[in-house]
Amino acid sequence: MKESISIGLLGLGTVGSGVVKLVQNHQEQLVHQLGCSLTIHKVLVRDIEKEREVDIRREILTTDYKEVVLNPEIDIIVEVMGGIEDTKKYILEAFQAKKHVVTANKDLIALYGSELQDAATANGCDLYYEASVAGGIPIIRGLADGLASDKIEKLMGIVNGTTNYILTKMDKEGLSYETALQNAQKLGYAEADPTADVEGLDAARKMAILSRLAFSMNIDLEDVEVTGISKVTKEDLKYGDMLGYTMKLIGYAHQVDGKAEVSVQPTFLSKNHPLSSVNDEYNAVYVYGEAVGETMFYGPGAGSLPTATSVVSDIVAVVKNMRLGVNGKNTLLPQYEKNLKKADERLAKYFIRLHVRDEVGAFSELTKLFSAYSISFEKILQLPLEEKGLAEIVIVTHKATMENYQSVLQHIRDLSVVKGIQSFYRVEGDGLK
Amino acid sequence: MKESISIGLLGLGTVGSGVVKLVQNHQEQLVHQLGCSLTIHKVLVRDIEKEREVDIRREILTTDYKEVVLNPEIDIIVEVMGGIEDTKKYILEAFQAKKHVVTANKDLIALYGSELQDAATANGCDLYYEASVAGGIPIIRGLADGLASDKIEKLMGIVNGTTNYILTKMDKEGLSYETALQNAQKLGYAEADPTADVEGLDAARKMAILSRLAFSMNIDLEDVEVTGISKVTKEDLKYGDMLGYTMKLIGYAHQVDGKAEVSVQPTFLSKNHPLSSVNDEYNAVYVYGEAVGETMFYGPGAGSLPTATSVVSDIVAVVKNMRLGVNGKNTLLPQYEKNLKKADERLAKYFIRLHVRDEVGAFSELTKLFSAYSISFEKILQLPLEEKGLAEIVIVTHKATMENYQSVLQHIRDLSVVKGIQSFYRVEGDGLK
Repeated sequence: MKESISIGLLGLGTVGSGVVKLVQNHQEQLVHQLGCSLTIHKVLVRDIEKEREVDIRREILTTDYKEVVLNPEIDIIVEVMGGIEDTKKYILEAFQAKKHVVTANKDLIALYGSELQDAATANGCDLYYEASVAGGIPIIRGLADGLASDKIEKLMGIVNGTTNYILTKMDKEGLSYETALQNAQKLGYAEADPTADVEGLDAARKMAILSRLAFSMNIDLEDVEVTGISKVTKEDLKYGDMLGYTMKLIGYAHQVDGKAEVSVQPTFLSKNHPLSSVNDEYNAVYVYGEAVGETMFYGPGAGSLPTATSVVSDIVAVVKNMRLGVNGKNTLLPQYEKNLKKADERLAKYFIRLHVRDEVGAFSELTKLFSAYSISFEKILQLPLEEKGLAEIVIVTHKATMENYQSVLQHIRDLSVVKGIQSFYRVEGDGLK
Repeated sequence: MKESISIGLLGLGTVGSGVVKLVQNHQEQLVHQLGCSLTIHKVLVRDIEKEREVDIRREILTTDYKEVVLNPEIDIIVEVMGGIEDTKKYILEAFQAKKHVVTANKDLIALYGSELQDAATANGCDLYYEASVAGGIPIIRGLADGLASDKIEKLMGIVNGTTNYILTKMDKEGLSYETALQNAQKLGYAEADPTADVEGLDAARKMAILSRLAFSMNIDLEDVEVTGISKVTKEDLKYGDMLGYTMKLIGYAHQVDGKAEVSVQPTFLSKNHPLSSVNDEYNAVYVYGEAVGETMFYGPGAGSLPTATSVVSDIVAVVKNMRLGVNGKNTLLPQYEKNLKKADERLAKYFIRLHVRDEVGAFSELTKLFSAYSISFEKILQLPLEEKGLAEIVIVTHKATMENYQSVLQHIRDLSVVKGIQSFYRVEGDGLK
């Protein structure tokens, strides 16, 4: 066994710098755990001359990925550069060169996870990606190991810090979506182009990764239905609050009888749900297992050191496997064929907010439509609107199939009493009782 | 490699029955993960004739522990019988017979964890005990693996479901301690003799186990300072609530400069602390790592199937080690010598509730005493009492050393204006701002 394990870094941005710092600062602890030291041997960067905030010798920086990926001295490649196609190519070359790979790249794993896993296994290499979902939270390990003896029925995640920050500010400080987004951008929680975050794409990638593991099924990114938060208004939050709900962007994965559904959508959570008090930029993943019941993992979803912590945990796992001579053997390949629920098998409660003409019989028109599609009401709130002759009506339904719900949404606009649909959301839990 | 791994169960109570059910119901999943099946081979019980709620053949029950512990067919001993001295003897004999042990016994691990670990290692055997702390929550694995590359500064746990249930009912429904305890007893959440729970002893055992792992230091049970909840009143909760705090029985472990403190005590948590919304019989462990920042693991602290889930996860880990031929090698022995903080190194905020004679200069007497011990006030609440001439005064201090705090408590009774100290608690977080 070598006395030092050499790491090749692809990328030296926020997460990469964190990895360098942790490996430098925790050398003593790592030696105690692993019986060997870790060395950062070579680092792929775009610009060698750039000022770095970490203490790293310029000689080990390179702009040629081959000096890292094909370097015979290097045992483990740590990919923290982001990107998809080039990055995939580098990682595949690394496996061919019999190097283990640790990555924090959710986009890559969401799109090409199965293919990369196959390449790793074929080469007797490890592929670990704890940091790709929910930065500092050890949820991948939790799903793979801790809950191994259970059947996971439901997984709900707040897996995007940007949107959680925006929704928290809208909720607690009454900000509009636009103002909250601007604040997030000022603080660096949101990008200049916030689309991937606010439209739920980032969360969808993470949910593809998590649901794949939770259900042991090859869920693809395009199987995840996505709705973002850019249309959520503070009025929606106000009415939800009155009925006992908090709005969160929830990644929802559910399976019953071997059939799965996965979505990302703004959701009204009952205020007594453990996820409803996860605020600001924090992430959390709630897991309901048949045997264990409710569990939740909470922590920072991003940030240099939190994410680097997960990366280094993965490095530790790879080195332990190296010492035990079992690399490439700890993989869990999917146990089941992909099987997705149809629209008439997907059950949920819904929140629907309407502007309705305040006239005799208005309500009976509504109830007739809902009854025609077997949807009953759990809660109703009617309030007068400033505009004369109009009323605000908020309906929370009992559980309904998605098929019936979509039919109601389609036909509700045709009702003469309905002036407009203001908003509609999934609902989870009981709310006010 | 064997096609089936044989398990010997010591005990067939609540948790033991859960283990039998999970192994029976998840056979397909387990085979997929392990490449072999699991069989319950022999079970130690007190009474063979007793009706069982699980489907188990009477022939495999025995009242002679040797038929389990020394049985040459058996690979893994699962100890779910509880008890200390006899149980320890059985487990030591199991190690001598080269059997791996999975236990859910917190009392045993808290008292004899190091000795048992040594015996396991000496015999090349595994000892796993995930279920000994916080039933269904994979916190031991989380500490050992997930946060391996971090330095844990603080760990706070709600690790006793009974007391959390009682405090939740006192807080949310305004029940007295006595009534809440009786309710808990009726529901089976509290024992007829609730001492071990309500006086914090159960939580102390779990904190000894957790802090040992978190700080890699041999913390003993008697190093854990313990105060229970039996003196907590609903008046305390009311005044805490007014100042922005929720009361929880908190296991607190903190280290700085390699020196540790561990305690269990009723604590006022700021309402924005993630632990403050952990209600009813649920458990949660909050971990603050230097790199990762705040994380929290939440789930059921007890119950047949949740606890059994953790036991079966441990069995899975042992079987994986068997297949890899690495049993007895995954142990983390303590890295540091035990080093505990002294009273002048322990810092905390405190909540002190007094009855004070409502006379001129009363407050200046109080401030003089606190100033003499360098303790300043963060919050003060004074309200008139029904008894004429008396006032209720609640003080929340800024951070003070335990030494100074204890001196103040000692001398406060001597002040002529103080009629009595109603209560005093540790405070965590900022409360109302």
